[in-house]
Amino acid sequence: MKYMNETIKTQLAHRTIREFKDQKIPDEVFGLLMEVARRTATSTGMQATSIIRVADPEIRAEIAKICTQVYAATAPELLIFIVDQYRNNQIAKEKNGFIEPTKDIDRFFASFTDACLMAQNIVTAAESMGLGTVYFGSILNDAEIICELLKLPELTFPVIGLGLGYPNQDPQLKPRMEMRLRVFENTYVAFENYLDEIKEYDEVMRTYYDLRDPGKPADSFSDQVVARFKQYSPKRREMLNIVQKQGFNLNVK
Amino acid sequence: MKYMNETIKTQLAHRTIREFKDQKIPDEVFGLLMEVARRTATSTGMQATSIIRVADPEIRAEIAKICTQVYAATAPELLIFIVDQYRNNQIAKEKNGFIEPTKDIDRFFASFTDACLMAQNIVTAAESMGLGTVYFGSILNDAEIICELLKLPELTFPVIGLGLGYPNQDPQLKPRMEMRLRVFENTYVAFENYLDEIKEYDEVMRTYYDLRDPGKPADSFSDQVVARFKQYSPKRREMLNIVQKQGFNLNVK
Repeated sequence: MKYMNETIKTQLAHRTIREFKDQKIPDEVFGLLMEVARRTATSTGMQATSIIRVADPEIRAEIAKICTQVYAATAPELLIFIVDQYRNNQIAKEKNGFIEPTKDIDRFFASFTDACLMAQNIVTAAESMGLGTVYFGSILNDAEIICELLKLPELTFPVIGLGLGYPNQDPQLKPRMEMRLRVFENTYVAFENYLDEIKEYDEVMRTYYDLRDPGKPADSFSDQVVARFKQYSPKRREMLNIVQKQGFNLNVK
Repeated sequence: MKYMNETIKTQLAHRTIREFKDQKIPDEVFGLLMEVARRTATSTGMQATSIIRVADPEIRAEIAKICTQVYAATAPELLIFIVDQYRNNQIAKEKNGFIEPTKDIDRFFASFTDACLMAQNIVTAAESMGLGTVYFGSILNDAEIICELLKLPELTFPVIGLGLGYPNQDPQLKPRMEMRLRVFENTYVAFENYLDEIKEYDEVMRTYYDLRDPGKPADSFSDQVVARFKQYSPKRREMLNIVQKQGFNLNVK
């Protein structure tokens, strides 16, 4: 492969790490992660995202409860990426430039996007330095409590959490669906029968789980899809109400 | 710097590229980008995002009109990342596992997040191979028309566009705000007076613009914030209605 390089090797080796060594991340490494965050692309240059670095064990424990993932408490570092339209709104107010549309939901989405780009940029940088990472989308199981715990002001909102540390495990790569089912030319392609299309992938996943946990019943991908759809929480489903409570105008007709 | 490496050097050198060489991206390079996309972290393993690779010049021209950015038509490659809960919904239906909460807005947000992570992973991979990139958040200026152009089925939604190609320009790094204003320990820190805090950054930005376009009036960052807030479009502000039209339940009280 003519074009293969270290960066891409790192990216292709991505796995979620859930067990970490009891080893602090050096300040220089953390500093580089923050520089990478700073240089990440940002919508119209507005830099309307922020990061909460959560070290307090009590806050960590509360977050882990919401996530129902103990490693949100135990990972050496936990970062929460947030939509932050508060800062620029204050700047606008101080310049007498505040107007109501600054609270619009499209500003929220621009910040939400930026926060995700920043998180992923940090993940790649971290992995390139030998760190392992785990995302916590599960902070949105209760966005309202997360806002309270982190004292998030109006026009801010939690997007995603990220645990970091030196890996204490070496999990296998998880098999992924073929990209022919996910990349389309010009317009979306809907398939006639998805179970046929993913038949092979379903088997690959079953084998993967069977090898990982020989005792357990091994799910196919389609089994997992059905199981995941059955899991839902009232709070999570109604997250837009918390977005609104944080001061954003949803503008829903 | 003990920990500096090629990946981080690439990430710290990120600039938006708007002018591209008339040079095709080799298939091997594009293939690697798609492999990186495939290996990107995805919420609960669901892989509920897709990519539309737009080559058709007519569709490109329409998208560029919506973005009001001509390089959405001229960049050698244009990718549109989409929320895709359609595929897994079909899988669930084929297994008689469909239930109404599969259309919930939190599924939309999980996919939206995944789409952004995937886009940024591709950006880093592309830049590591010498490509330049430009994000198009502006596709959301008219999400409804984007859905029509790309024939997006129910439970899909456009997230962000990405132009790629070999750079035909070498722009300066754009100055960014200090991270002390954007990274907080444990809880959010609101400052008393933001104009004071960003005084130096405002000057740095003014100098940057003055050097870039000596003729033009040079905006400070705070000037830009005020100017950006003044720009808003009815369609963009009301994007959640299109999310709803695409079949998602907003669950707004």
